[in-house]
Amino acid sequence: MNPTDTAPLTSRFPTPIDDRYFEDYVPGAVHRFGEMRVTEQEIVDFARRYDPQDFHTDPAKAAGTIFGGLIASGWMTCGMMMRMYSEHYLTHNASLASPGIDELRWLKPVRPDDVLSTRVTIVEARRSVSKPDRGLVRSRIEVLNQRDEVVLSMLAMNLIGCRNPSAN
Amino acid sequence: MNPTDTAPLTSRFPTPIDDRYFEDYVPGAVHRFGEMRVTEQEIVDFARRYDPQDFHTDPAKAAGTIFGGLIASGWMTCGMMMRMYSEHYLTHNASLASPGIDELRWLKPVRPDDVLSTRVTIVEARRSVSKPDRGLVRSRIEVLNQRDEVVLSMLAMNLIGCRNPSAN
Repeated sequence: MNPTDTAPLTSRFPTPIDDRYFEDYVPGAVHRFGEMRVTEQEIVDFARRYDPQDFHTDPAKAAGTIFGGLIASGWMTCGMMMRMYSEHYLTHNASLASPGIDELRWLKPVRPDDVLSTRVTIVEARRSVSKPDRGLVRSRIEVLNQRDEVVLSMLAMNLIGCRNPSAN
Repeated sequence: MNPTDTAPLTSRFPTPIDDRYFEDYVPGAVHRFGEMRVTEQEIVDFARRYDPQDFHTDPAKAAGTIFGGLIASGWMTCGMMMRMYSEHYLTHNASLASPGIDELRWLKPVRPDDVLSTRVTIVEARRSVSKPDRGLVRSRIEVLNQRDEVVLSMLAMNLIGCRNPSAN
């Protein structure tokens, strides 16, 4: 598998990602997508710049830590999630930024050769009262490894433009 | 300035970072450190791999978006925070992992040539009851730009080993 391959596993959206609006994010819907392989090289390269702790940058020293070997920076796992999320879930034509994230949890270590995918459950979709051309979508994001273990979980917010800004 | 230069501005820790334990994280203490310059190249390189949206990867297309120009992926800003946090704040000898982050908020866009620094306020330091060799430290992290505007805020948790595991 190509490590940059993030082909979707399943997708239940009614519209393609470049014609996707607030109305297409339906609370309760579950979307599963992406497949990215973690490599030792990427773990080390990322961590040297952004998270230079021994258990992320040095396989030999990592073996002597509580983790028993090299693990990915939790921020790299967030980055891999975002790659899958932006390629398969988040509208390419109506995304208006994200205010932030709640309840981010690193639940299991991510190691070289793990294969990650993403599952998103839409928790809430609320039309803005003050700016009716957009709405706020809250999504429970889970990143899973090849054993279907959840390694990362978070609750994301996205502001998304409406297809029909004048509708009530 | 070298873009990898993250020299501390101030530090009030009683101990150096390679001899720093749970006991050295005192609630109410404020630590300010780091200085990292954001470049267009790094914004684009990061986003091509982890967050391929036009306003992160393409200066020309970004000019036509609501942001009016290229902005850094919020996850890259998290990575730059982590670089400063791990170099100047988080113990190098007693860090036992982070369970996660709460209330992560991207408050202002981060643009090329911004210079970021980090301010940490220790919110809570609680000895573990079940595992008395460690404690949980909660830190309010803020990333500021060269105008002292807070661009990113979050509440982080870190498990940190105790200097005196047998003390009560």
